[in-house]
Amino acid sequence: MRNFKAQKIMQLLLTTNCIIDCMNTIAPRTLKGFRDFLPSDMRIRTKVIEIFKTVFEKYGYEPLETPTLEYADILLGKYGDEAEKLLYHFTDRGGREVAMKYDLTVPACRVLAQYQNDIPLPFKRYQIQPVWRADNTQKGRFRELYQCDADTFGSSSVLSDAEYIQMGLEALQKMGFTGIVARISNRKFIDGLVLYAGASQAQFSIICTAIDKLDKIGIEGVQKEMKNKEISEESINKITEIISIQGSTQDKIAKLRVVMKGIEQAELGLSELEEMFAYLKTAQVNPEMYIFDLAIVRGLSYYTGPVWEFMIKDGDVGSVGGGGRYDKLVGLYLGKDVPATGGSFGIERIIEIVKDRKMFPSENINSVLVTIFDPSLTKNSLALAQKLRSEGKSVILYPDALIKLEKQLKYANKKGIEEVYILGPEEVAHNQVKIKNMKTGNQTTVNF
Amino acid sequence: MRNFKAQKIMQLLLTTNCIIDCMNTIAPRTLKGFRDFLPSDMRIRTKVIEIFKTVFEKYGYEPLETPTLEYADILLGKYGDEAEKLLYHFTDRGGREVAMKYDLTVPACRVLAQYQNDIPLPFKRYQIQPVWRADNTQKGRFRELYQCDADTFGSSSVLSDAEYIQMGLEALQKMGFTGIVARISNRKFIDGLVLYAGASQAQFSIICTAIDKLDKIGIEGVQKEMKNKEISEESINKITEIISIQGSTQDKIAKLRVVMKGIEQAELGLSELEEMFAYLKTAQVNPEMYIFDLAIVRGLSYYTGPVWEFMIKDGDVGSVGGGGRYDKLVGLYLGKDVPATGGSFGIERIIEIVKDRKMFPSENINSVLVTIFDPSLTKNSLALAQKLRSEGKSVILYPDALIKLEKQLKYANKKGIEEVYILGPEEVAHNQVKIKNMKTGNQTTVNF
Repeated sequence: MRNFKAQKIMQLLLTTNCIIDCMNTIAPRTLKGFRDFLPSDMRIRTKVIEIFKTVFEKYGYEPLETPTLEYADILLGKYGDEAEKLLYHFTDRGGREVAMKYDLTVPACRVLAQYQNDIPLPFKRYQIQPVWRADNTQKGRFRELYQCDADTFGSSSVLSDAEYIQMGLEALQKMGFTGIVARISNRKFIDGLVLYAGASQAQFSIICTAIDKLDKIGIEGVQKEMKNKEISEESINKITEIISIQGSTQDKIAKLRVVMKGIEQAELGLSELEEMFAYLKTAQVNPEMYIFDLAIVRGLSYYTGPVWEFMIKDGDVGSVGGGGRYDKLVGLYLGKDVPATGGSFGIERIIEIVKDRKMFPSENINSVLVTIFDPSLTKNSLALAQKLRSEGKSVILYPDALIKLEKQLKYANKKGIEEVYILGPEEVAHNQVKIKNMKTGNQTTVNF
Repeated sequence: MRNFKAQKIMQLLLTTNCIIDCMNTIAPRTLKGFRDFLPSDMRIRTKVIEIFKTVFEKYGYEPLETPTLEYADILLGKYGDEAEKLLYHFTDRGGREVAMKYDLTVPACRVLAQYQNDIPLPFKRYQIQPVWRADNTQKGRFRELYQCDADTFGSSSVLSDAEYIQMGLEALQKMGFTGIVARISNRKFIDGLVLYAGASQAQFSIICTAIDKLDKIGIEGVQKEMKNKEISEESINKITEIISIQGSTQDKIAKLRVVMKGIEQAELGLSELEEMFAYLKTAQVNPEMYIFDLAIVRGLSYYTGPVWEFMIKDGDVGSVGGGGRYDKLVGLYLGKDVPATGGSFGIERIIEIVKDRKMFPSENINSVLVTIFDPSLTKNSLALAQKLRSEGKSVILYPDALIKLEKQLKYANKKGIEEVYILGPEEVAHNQVKIKNMKTGNQTTVNF
């Protein structure tokens, strides 16, 4: 119901014509980085979100939603100074410091902590909601954007990691993408690599960052970058040796098993990789859709096991999502360790690609238009609309009988409606209806 | 993808253990009036929203979403001083005055104005989104709540009004409610009633407000209220005469046609009512589900034609939605008149009732659990999960093979999962699988 108070005031305003004055001077506009989603956008967005939801639920993930606003102290200090500058943060009328949510991970951890007695572990949740970041819009970034996360909390099994990868591939396939590859590595293996190279723990992130660029700058670029950051020549050589290893996933693992023998972390990582690939095989995932990729590190320290990225090779889309295992992160919120694995899909980017490539129709092709020939035939058209709706069709009944048929057809065209029903006196006399396909121009007459 | 900057900082934070310190002192909590929706809530909310969407789309309404934040001047001055106090309103980092949306009507009007060259009329849109009001939570009000609006812009036909009523009834029926009635009246008729009573235009809202309470305070209460507000005895008598008229919808209209003959507005209103009832009949709406109700006025001045409220009699739920025609409101935003009709459903209230009455399951009864008997049988369970998923089932594969079966079954119970698959060595040897129904305790063994 419309808000009563608002209506009451509206009544006063209408009397005084105040709104008219206001509106004449206020231009209708949206804030930079914020978007209206008209039906043509919504159709694509809804379909992409629907596919993710359906696939997440098939894999037993359950929906979660958290509020737009959080107490600021829940969010502050979680993303660092740089990110904090992007937080929509204000004092509410009750004097509380509040902030609009910045990502879906911190609220999910807050939920886990707040309801730990009510949520049985493992807890598999997905969350598809907007977040807000006062980011630089010149870089094409939005200030209100959807994120799409799925995570399993409370299990340390590689089965959960493998399941996520299988699920992600399935969602992207369902979207209609081809050339999808999950590029997989393992952070324990990377830890082992650093040990193998004789580098210090302090050099870990330099090495990760450099390897992360392998795709872009090539092996020489990686070497150069490490050299610039004062990694020893010996270390660089050893790292080069490893990341140059070619071959199938099995070949790579076999070769690495030999080279890195005795380095516990590396062996553990390779075992986890083998376990994951075995699960993917058992689950009958197309073997062309996943590879052990030495260039994947997801350079950040909170990952503790498998890490992955989803790439779309066809059309050079690049990465559309990624994630990994992070067994120590949730513990920071809960005070006790809760192993976790999962990741995010770049849903705004996916929607953009789907839209650009016209992978889903943005037009209203699912609706048909029932026209009204003239006022005397209004009820006939209404009865037809009713019949079509009862058959499960989405029907726009043109509401104005006084508008010429020609204009009604133009309306169908503007809206991208393909099928238009026409019910003139002749059709009515013969219990028939004319169906016009607006795309081909074809007309057929059927019994009604 | 997780935000890169955030991750980078997270890395620093992890090194310094800063988060641990922060988290130990910050209690996980939600703001008053804001809610987390855990999976059990989400299942109900999603289903209610899904039903509305499906029915709206069947009637050719299209989805629209507008941003959380608007320029404050778009919203300020639209709801009146009282409501404006409830607005979440702040200055963003760019110095812009911004506000969180307060309802869905003003943003929809803004969209109509902003994209008037791109949106062909009639424009039928639905919008199901949260709005924010810093309301008194002691009255059980939420500060973040969903609204559910559907409106047709750009048509003055009673067909659009009738369609909305048919659609609303269908949505509520689909939800599983019984005893649903659309109580319908017409503002032109009410205008005529005021004329008939010889009351002044200034007394219009007093009379409307009084009649609006007919259900609660009875006819004597209405008379008393009008008397207190200095409506003349003659006017009160004439109004009493009208609102006392009993009988079927047809009877009432027939009687009123006689009594109010010659009062143009009343006759126009009665004609519109007749037209609407004729359309509802043609559309085969159950005649027990709509009535002409003289107590419905929706006392506010922006309505210009048909007005209605959806009541659920069974269980004394009362009103769950309402609306009407408002041909002059959009013009205030656009500078030119755009006739409009539609309304809102009290979706938060509907969700609460659906939840209280357990009309939809909140448990995860759509998922099955596949257990893992012991580590050596992990792949067998994974293959089973894969098979069930390929058959369209939602499957939670218990990820930890080291957890005892008993505990895995307890997990199913906690989550309300009814069907559990068990694959022990014996079952595997015979290519079978045991299915346990957690509700009945029954076990069956089937071939796999």
